[in-house]
Amino acid sequence: MQLFHTESADSAEKVLPRAGQIASIIGIIYFVLTMLCALLLWIFGMSTFDSIAHSMTTLSTGGFSTSDMSIGKYDNINIEFTISIFMILGSLPFVLYLQAIRGNIFAIFKDDQVQLFILLVITSVLIVTFWKYQNTATFFNNFRSSFFNTISIFTGTGYTTQDFNNWGSFIIILFLFLMLVGGCAGSTTCGIKIFRLQILYQSAKIQIFKLLNPHGVSVAKFNKMPVSESITYSVMGYFFMFIIIYILITLILSFVGNDFLTSLSGAATSLANVGPGLGNVIGPTKTFAGLSDTTKWVLIIGMLTGRLELLSVIILLTPAFWKN
Amino acid sequence: MQLFHTESADSAEKVLPRAGQIASIIGIIYFVLTMLCALLLWIFGMSTFDSIAHSMTTLSTGGFSTSDMSIGKYDNINIEFTISIFMILGSLPFVLYLQAIRGNIFAIFKDDQVQLFILLVITSVLIVTFWKYQNTATFFNNFRSSFFNTISIFTGTGYTTQDFNNWGSFIIILFLFLMLVGGCAGSTTCGIKIFRLQILYQSAKIQIFKLLNPHGVSVAKFNKMPVSESITYSVMGYFFMFIIIYILITLILSFVGNDFLTSLSGAATSLANVGPGLGNVIGPTKTFAGLSDTTKWVLIIGMLTGRLELLSVIILLTPAFWKN
Repeated sequence: MQLFHTESADSAEKVLPRAGQIASIIGIIYFVLTMLCALLLWIFGMSTFDSIAHSMTTLSTGGFSTSDMSIGKYDNINIEFTISIFMILGSLPFVLYLQAIRGNIFAIFKDDQVQLFILLVITSVLIVTFWKYQNTATFFNNFRSSFFNTISIFTGTGYTTQDFNNWGSFIIILFLFLMLVGGCAGSTTCGIKIFRLQILYQSAKIQIFKLLNPHGVSVAKFNKMPVSESITYSVMGYFFMFIIIYILITLILSFVGNDFLTSLSGAATSLANVGPGLGNVIGPTKTFAGLSDTTKWVLIIGMLTGRLELLSVIILLTPAFWKN
Repeated sequence: MQLFHTESADSAEKVLPRAGQIASIIGIIYFVLTMLCALLLWIFGMSTFDSIAHSMTTLSTGGFSTSDMSIGKYDNINIEFTISIFMILGSLPFVLYLQAIRGNIFAIFKDDQVQLFILLVITSVLIVTFWKYQNTATFFNNFRSSFFNTISIFTGTGYTTQDFNNWGSFIIILFLFLMLVGGCAGSTTCGIKIFRLQILYQSAKIQIFKLLNPHGVSVAKFNKMPVSESITYSVMGYFFMFIIIYILITLILSFVGNDFLTSLSGAATSLANVGPGLGNVIGPTKTFAGLSDTTKWVLIIGMLTGRLELLSVIILLTPAFWKN
């Protein structure tokens, strides 16, 4: 199979040295951020091993903890805040850090994707805080747990400090959808990603514009640059395939015997590589250990498909791939 | 606001007589099918009033019954079968009936949309039948209730003969997704519709084809005719808006205090104009009467938005619509 045409291979070669350079610098940035996170966690009282282990799965938005209680074990607001900030840093496009150290420090804040992501994070945290405030605890305590757990779910990291399964059905539905969104394109997160939602929103807006102005011209824009139709087209295709695969995994999970919430959230958490699910079986304080083997295989396929951004897995299933 | 440019208005006028003619013939077909359905229901034992009332909400895939027990009241297999067939007839593109009475009787069976719809109906009915067979009753009784209720949910009619809420979480998830699909474009059904799924599937296939053949050419086709990019584009935009509006309604429903399943299925059943929801509050044997006023308003907006195919409602919310 000839995935790359000779011409494109040629031009790719000419670009490679620079692409390689960028990749190494981003690698260094990633390493420095991880070390910085580890240092702060260590200062705030984690053991050396724990601080390094947690910093590695914070920047990667992986979310593995050395404890079954996850970050809830430490009950330390400084640790929670540090990890929250570094989970967000892991969800931003890494190439912007490169621009920042090259002097363009405001590039991060001017980026369309980053702006919307930060706005959505702030909005969700506030909504969750006020929702919980109706029922329990002080405002500050509600804010503290909302801040950490919402960011953890939104960025697809998966750390927990509380059992948000008890925060009410609104939070369960909100977290289910936030899981599927994920962070920015070009970060370590999974899911549909902010960039795609922005392109989809733009094209929906253009369609409405065309209804009102049948002879008008309107072009989708991202970071003030026009977006080509082929990009819009492929983003739309991705979104459709994501939804279909999500529905298929959910159906299979419930078909093999899982309950309603385990199926819906299991499909979401595996496809978006989050970690914990929702409900009484795979919720934040529960474990996937008790699930059937079939269920685990389905979740494994979901995780791989999500991590590899669907297409590279779907393509393996097409007969054309295996010809010539 | 100038929705129609003069040029298009001119050409529309030239077409109008024919379009008007088609509309009246379709009206007659609709009337004849309704009367035929009423006649059959009457023959199979319904009262004159009930047979007319039910036939009117069968062809329109409306699903209102004269009894709280819906079609379950009659416990009559002939009535169930008749209604099932006419619910399907109400979900097919009506223009094909016109072609049929003009002599092209096989047009219905050759239509891409009809083929996939019928295939999906048969598949779903069989899956539901076999799923239920694992647990209870004879194969025939399972088939009978699966046939009627699956078709009723899939076509968005909303009649029931049994409480499918007790059929297991797989059925609840399957019905939730089937609700959102609906029937064929050009029928009386609501939802995303088969036509749109086919266009979306085609464009996803083309993207995969392009990955394998970067210089190859592939065009989306529907009923053997190429589909223009602008149609694909608007179908994709519709799909995105449908999902976003569905998510918004679900979030609002849960925010105002409804439980998980009521929110998810309430949003689906209102947006797709089905009728019953799922779960213990708005399930097939329950009623919407006990819901809060806010919830009812949200569902009303959902029903209107779904019935008017989103755009005509969304456009009212754009500032540009209210200018000049």
